[in-house]
Parts: sequence; structure tokens; C-alpha cells
Amino acid sequence: MATASDLALANRLAEAAGEAIRPLFRGEWSQEQKADRSFVTEADQAAEAAMRAILESERSDDGIIGEEYGTRNEGAGRQWVLDPIDGTTSFIAGRPIFGTLIALMQEGWPVLGVIDQPIARERWVGRIGDGTTFNGAPIRAAACKDLSDAVLGTTTPHQFAGDDVDAFMGVVKSVAERKIIYGGDCYNYGLVASGHVDIVVEAGLKLHDFAALVPVVEGAGGVMSDWQGNPLDAESDGRVIALGDAARLEDVLEAMGGGSLHDHGH
Amino acid sequence: MATASDLALANRLAEAAGEAIRPLFRGEWSQEQKADRSFVTEADQAAEAAMRAILESERSDDGIIGEEYGTRNEGAGRQWVLDPIDGTTSFIAGRPIFGTLIALMQEGWPVLGVIDQPIARERWVGRIGDGTTFNGAPIRAAACKDLSDAVLGTTTPHQFAGDDVDAFMGVVKSVAERKIIYGGDCYNYGLVASGHVDIVVEAGLKLHDFAALVPVVEGAGGVMSDWQGNPLDAESDGRVIALGDAARLEDVLEAMGGGSLHDHGH
Repeated sequence: MATASDLALANRLAEAAGEAIRPLFRGEWSQEQKADRSFVTEADQAAEAAMRAILESERSDDGIIGEEYGTRNEGAGRQWVLDPIDGTTSFIAGRPIFGTLIALMQEGWPVLGVIDQPIARERWVGRIGDGTTFNGAPIRAAACKDLSDAVLGTTTPHQFAGDDVDAFMGVVKSVAERKIIYGGDCYNYGLVASGHVDIVVEAGLKLHDFAALVPVVEGAGGVMSDWQGNPLDAESDGRVIALGDAARLEDVLEAMGGGSLHDHGH
Repeated sequence: MATASDLALANRLAEAAGEAIRPLFRGEWSQEQKADRSFVTEADQAAEAAMRAILESERSDDGIIGEEYGTRNEGAGRQWVLDPIDGTTSFIAGRPIFGTLIALMQEGWPVLGVIDQPIARERWVGRIGDGTTFNGAPIRAAACKDLSDAVLGTTTPHQFAGDDVDAFMGVVKSVAERKIIYGGDCYNYGLVASGHVDIVVEAGLKLHDFAALVPVVEGAGGVMSDWQGNPLDAESDGRVIALGDAARLEDVLEAMGGGSLHDHGH
């Protein structure tokens, strides 16, 4: 279990990343910087470097798995998993719904997670066994009596290929028309924890994309799993489900059993 | 052309709508209210009623075309077109990227437009012949040398059916991988005016969805058109293109000539 000291440190990491990112959001960029996206790389690297400097100074025995700068102390029992900007396309486009992701994993399981939106200054923090807060206040995910009442979120339809398209469209068809939000990346999982979104279904996520989400969603009473309903760990295949109401997991898995993009009318 | 008085009035309408919407964002709703979405209707109606009360008191000769409460003074030369919450699904889901849309049309052409995001307190205001501001400061859309550099935005893939899917996927294939943002509704058009998004392609928009967008995008130096490249007016079919750089219109129209959802790899 993550300690109070881990929690305080995770908050400081988020603050350091936010300080690095804010000056680069909606900046004035040259055509060349926009074309090769070097300004995103700059923000990503600056934010991860700021977090790593703190960890290397204060937790030199812990491991680090970072999206930009790789792994340090591979095999350590405690590992910090960092994604400085999850939702780089939203960052590029000037939408304040990307996030910095920070997770602490112990023996391969995420026990502490942070989703930080540095522009809107919104922060979800979850600790397994303790609970989830939004800007410091405890939150709970929402009950969902039936999938037809659910709000479904997912970042992009292009993340699904082959049979995954059919599985995703099975969920689309089980929720009410017009209650699907696209875009959002990690931000959608924060909204599950806050009770505004009921289901997120995604594929192709890396460990640094999902490790922080698990404690946030589960600390708020929700559940995250892979597409077979198994808990997520470092070996998961990147297909994830997040649910505010764990009682709907069987319904979602069942809905994923069939359907096709072209059967969907609206 | 919209007068300074029209501009001041449009800002007051946006403020009145925002006052009505803010208390209802991310509220605590009962299961029943969430299931039938009555809380959205409440916010939509309260915001439109607040705007109509001002117009009816101060501009009794002008027409009103409102999403919630219909048309007043049909056939008036000056008509205010109101969409109190564009992006209701984002509103439901607690994402601050919906907007209030206010347009003034003269003889069927939009001459003044407002996109107001009341949670983040972001406001784009455009006047044909005058320019576009973001929170009061003049803005310009960005140059885009080549579609492969472009950021493309669209709200949901489900808005496209039949041949429209192929046309949309033609644009998807012409932009760089991972530079597509989904979700966003009117907010994406504000980001075109601000120079962060280059292209928006959508279908199925109603007059109250697009009338306010035209002065915002075109006042910033961009262009809006239908899918044949014609200007948008009250008779348009709801298929729209917004471009930050008008010089790319031919390229987008050409890209829309072919392609299929299933040819797209990622």
C-alpha cells in the first residue's frame, strides 16, 4: 500500500510536471515546430525530466518507467510509472483535457495513481485501500442500473482494428444514442471516478497509459479490467475497460461479444 | 454588418446563459434524472430562456431561432440564432468543452457569432468585416502549408453515414497519423480560429449548430463552407468544413473524393 509520504510525493510530481507544461500550452509555434511536433516533445520531455529529478533525488532505490526517458532500476519492487502528457493530440490542439499520469506500482500492481490536468488545475488521486479524491475532496463513481442509461467514453475509433471493432461497437449499441463521448484520453477515466462517465472501453494502451488509472477508478468504487474481465497488471495486452459500477461488468463483456460498425444506425 | 451595440448585446447573452449553466454542470443528479437526461434539458431551457428574456425586452423587432423554444418573428431581416448547449454529451459527461452558441443573421447570412465556454470562461466572438477575439484579444487562424501537417477535428464518427464515411475518411488519410481529435463540438471551431486546429469536417449540423461558427472562423481569417465549397447559409444541408487556412480548401475537397474507413490502418 502507498504511504502518506508516497501520496505527498505524487502530488509534488504532478505540480512539477504542471509547471513544465503550462508555459507550452497554446504557445506560438513556427510552422516547422507544428509540422514535426517538436513543441510537444519539448513539453513531454520537460515534464518527465522535472518528475525524474525529484524521484532520483528522494527515492533513488525506486524504479522509474517513463514514456520519454525509459526505465531506471528495472525489477525494483516499487516502480514509478510516468506519462508526462497523455493525450498529446489534445495538447497539440489546445484542448484542456489531456493529463499527466503518475502511478506507483508495487510488485507489478498499481497502488497509487494520479491524473493531473494542469491547465484546468484538476487532479484525481487514487490509492488502493484508501479512496480517490478530486482536488482533495473524496469522490465516488456513480451507480448505473442499466447499460442503456450509461455514458460511454473512448478516445478515438481508430484505436480499434479487426475483431476489436465489433467488440467496441457491441458496447456502442448497448448504450443510448448520443451518450457517447469521443476524445479525452485519461480525462475520461477521471470522469468515471467522479461519477459523470459510466464506461470507458479502449485498446492499444501501454502500461504508462493505464497504470495510474486503476487506483483512481477503483479507489472511487469502480473497476478496471482487461477485455476478459481480468485485473490489469504490467502484463496486460492494452485492452481495457473502466466501469463506475462494477455490477455492470458482465453486461459490458456480454455486449462486446457481437455487433458491427455498419449495423449502427445513427 | 453587426453594430457595436449588437456585439455588446451578444456578450450579455453569453453571460446570461453561462450564469444559468454553471450551477448545473457536474451536479448531483438522481438515477432518474441521469437516465432521462432531464437535467440537461433543464440547463438547456434555463440558458435559452435567459437569453430570450433579454432579446424580447431589448430587441422586440428582431427574430429568434432557438433550439429549445423555437422561432419568433419568422422572416425578420435580423434573426438571433441560439443554441444554449452545443455538445450536450460533453455537458452530461462533465467535460468543459461544450459551448453556448449565439449568432446574428442578417437577410439569412451570419454576421456575428459567439462560442462561449462557461466553465473555463473562454469566449470566441467573431464579426464579419471586423475580426475575431478570444476573451477580448484579437486572434488569427494558422497557416497550414500541407494537409499532412494539419490537425483535424470532428465530434463523432457516427455523424457520417453512407458515402459521407468515405468522404470523411479521405480527409483522415490525408492528415498525419495521430493528429485527429474526436469530440469537441463547437469548441473545435474556436480552436480553428485560435490557430490550434486546422480542419474540422462534420455532417448533420443544424442552423443553430453552425450559424455562430462562421463569423468566428472567418473573422479570424479562416473559411467555412459546405462539402461543395459553397458558403453556409440557412439553406445549407448541414455538411460543413472549417479551415484555418483557406488556401487548403481545394485540397480538402479533393481528399473528400475517395477512401474508405477500412483502408485506414491505425
